[in-house]
Amino acid sequence: MGTARVVFDRWGDRYASRLAGVRSSAVRDLFAAASRPDMISFSGGMPEVSRVPAAAVAQAAHDAILHEGTTALQYGTSNGRPETRALIVELMAESGVRVSADDIIVTAGAQQGLDLLAKTFIDPGDVVICEGPTYVGALQAFSAYQPEIRCVPLDADGMRMDLLEEELKRLGPRGAKFIYTIPNFHNPGGVTMSAERRRRLLELSREYDIPVVEDDPYGRLRFEGGHIKSLRALDDEVIYLGTFSKIFAPGLRLGWLVAPRPILAKVLLVKQAADLCGSNFAQVTAERYFLGTRWRRVLQDLTRTYAERRDAMLAALDEHFPAEARWTRPEGGFFVWVELPPFVDTGALLAEAVEHGVTFVPGDGFFPDGRGKNCMRLAFCYADPSRIAEGVQRLAEVIEDRLELYRAFIAAGAIPAPEEGAA
Amino acid sequence: MGTARVVFDRWGDRYASRLAGVRSSAVRDLFAAASRPDMISFSGGMPEVSRVPAAAVAQAAHDAILHEGTTALQYGTSNGRPETRALIVELMAESGVRVSADDIIVTAGAQQGLDLLAKTFIDPGDVVICEGPTYVGALQAFSAYQPEIRCVPLDADGMRMDLLEEELKRLGPRGAKFIYTIPNFHNPGGVTMSAERRRRLLELSREYDIPVVEDDPYGRLRFEGGHIKSLRALDDEVIYLGTFSKIFAPGLRLGWLVAPRPILAKVLLVKQAADLCGSNFAQVTAERYFLGTRWRRVLQDLTRTYAERRDAMLAALDEHFPAEARWTRPEGGFFVWVELPPFVDTGALLAEAVEHGVTFVPGDGFFPDGRGKNCMRLAFCYADPSRIAEGVQRLAEVIEDRLELYRAFIAAGAIPAPEEGAA
Repeated sequence: MGTARVVFDRWGDRYASRLAGVRSSAVRDLFAAASRPDMISFSGGMPEVSRVPAAAVAQAAHDAILHEGTTALQYGTSNGRPETRALIVELMAESGVRVSADDIIVTAGAQQGLDLLAKTFIDPGDVVICEGPTYVGALQAFSAYQPEIRCVPLDADGMRMDLLEEELKRLGPRGAKFIYTIPNFHNPGGVTMSAERRRRLLELSREYDIPVVEDDPYGRLRFEGGHIKSLRALDDEVIYLGTFSKIFAPGLRLGWLVAPRPILAKVLLVKQAADLCGSNFAQVTAERYFLGTRWRRVLQDLTRTYAERRDAMLAALDEHFPAEARWTRPEGGFFVWVELPPFVDTGALLAEAVEHGVTFVPGDGFFPDGRGKNCMRLAFCYADPSRIAEGVQRLAEVIEDRLELYRAFIAAGAIPAPEEGAA
Repeated sequence: MGTARVVFDRWGDRYASRLAGVRSSAVRDLFAAASRPDMISFSGGMPEVSRVPAAAVAQAAHDAILHEGTTALQYGTSNGRPETRALIVELMAESGVRVSADDIIVTAGAQQGLDLLAKTFIDPGDVVICEGPTYVGALQAFSAYQPEIRCVPLDADGMRMDLLEEELKRLGPRGAKFIYTIPNFHNPGGVTMSAERRRRLLELSREYDIPVVEDDPYGRLRFEGGHIKSLRALDDEVIYLGTFSKIFAPGLRLGWLVAPRPILAKVLLVKQAADLCGSNFAQVTAERYFLGTRWRRVLQDLTRTYAERRDAMLAALDEHFPAEARWTRPEGGFFVWVELPPFVDTGALLAEAVEHGVTFVPGDGFFPDGRGKNCMRLAFCYADPSRIAEGVQRLAEVIEDRLELYRAFIAAGAIPAPEEGAA
């Protein structure tokens, strides 16, 4: 909160010990800077809501309140409206996942689902397993309950199952509370877990008896390639997090959580303690929007828009980025992950990039342990193709400045060339 | 969640230890039963949203989305829209509390404020001080962080300051993380803290250096008597929780939290981890509603409606309830608190009452320690006066049945008469 100057904190010694692990999100801190009109933002993963027909949503909200006002304006049930859960059942069926309305709790975005799961499962010192890098909001949500977070590296096919298995063996009987994964169009990695790895992940989950949490905000934003079956479609003990934020709009704060019934009952108690219930007002509006508008056409248009932006970003990266950089080639979603030579500190680079009118998120925010300092997340979801090309060019210039020294050092033999020295 | 049959829980040993303290809310469990048309509900504290003009809200939502769609549908700032916080500044000024927009975080109802404060302050084993009885949602929110909850009894003037001081002395250097109070039209107690007690509470807060958390959902629903200054108006280190649920509608899930800046900065981090941000969609709608409608007239109408219902309930209690019962006479809000002779178990009474077509909330849910078993909360906010009269009569009959035995025992000298034996 940029406006609140933090003065001497006379309550400094009063806060819960969990706050030591709760960091501000660099992504969110950047939202303010990114809103300057001259700035090209590759930082926030904000959907292009201007493509969602405001008039149709306005009408949906209007009709919902007019016809269901006493419900829309009232407290609701803690697990969400039956109508909203029925809609979610349909949406999931379209993605090949069969669930019943009783398997679902409506949440305030998938972020609340992460918080509720963490609160349900994590005691201080418990282990949770994530991908490295992983979603910064998951790290924030989990960290508030003081777990030990172990990260399993990604490659182009998603989480490395050989390394996950090593980690599980290392943990032995200590185990882990859950394995958290974003299988489709990873945030921030941009990669998608292969079908084979998904099968293997579920095998390991069963063998080591550790639940899998599947976070799938981007699953319906596929630009190319075939749909890969959801983990929840393959195993009904998988905990699944979904959201309306990317197929409709984040401003309603609507997501959902699917889990085996005993777990769901616990999460529901935790939900009641957190906010009593979700917003009926948002739920009736979402129901009307999905029932009354051609939302599939809107989603197609959104997906096409993001695909064009992805193309623009990859083309600009190919054209402008230095040979030493590597990046992922996402088949959907919002993000490209860029890796620079080890000595480049993208946190330091960011200040310079902002001066040049472009923002990104430094990579270390996506790890719990300081890794990723030479990486960056580029969000292609929110700028027009021409702005993307311009932004990548600006960023490339900033990076080039840093790399000149790097190349001179390699030429002088002071540091090994990347071919020899890469891990 | 009545629909989810809880089968054998193979994850039974996996949950966080905090879940041992998280109970389901009897109030919320009753919402389902209370929705049967033949049932007269004194259980849920649900506002009479039918008096809120649905057409005006529908128009507010419609216009807000049409004119501010790209904002309304997008992620927002974690502390809430500046416009919403400016509205809250105005609302608080009308209640005599001067705050600035930077002192405020918009929350998902005041319940989220309770959760965020608990998460910010409470380590397992920390002490928090509440009134006894107190808001069941506060007990739920706090319990999830495993504090030791100490309850200070209420009388007709609110929290007993002599007993609070005793408690603070007993705690000594151990102290407490905060003192939680509902000074106006207490839930469930129905009483209001006197001006003198408020001053004394703030003195004790300063003397023992323990922050006060003032929860004020009902403050503007006064039926009679003069406004008593808010704790926050008397001391700007008080943490204040407000809500739109009772002056507008709970279905939007909008509340707010006011706190000293350093605390607010911590709460904001916790809010980000919990749900990223609140709903812009709900916030723009609320802004339009308050700017564009005669909301004061609606609030007056609501208050008059609740006052009539309070009158109906007190009249019916005077007429039908047995001499052994005592109850509070609220000057505002939603609730009357009834105390029956010590041997009456209102939990057992409830099943019988439901059979007779009337519900209430048994008193022990409002204590952390099993007290209140002979008490009940009656909500007068949600039934028409004639239904209230009928419901109180039904309830009185159920109670009479229990008291016959009680009177026989007293007549036989088996238990002392209340005049002699009352605590």
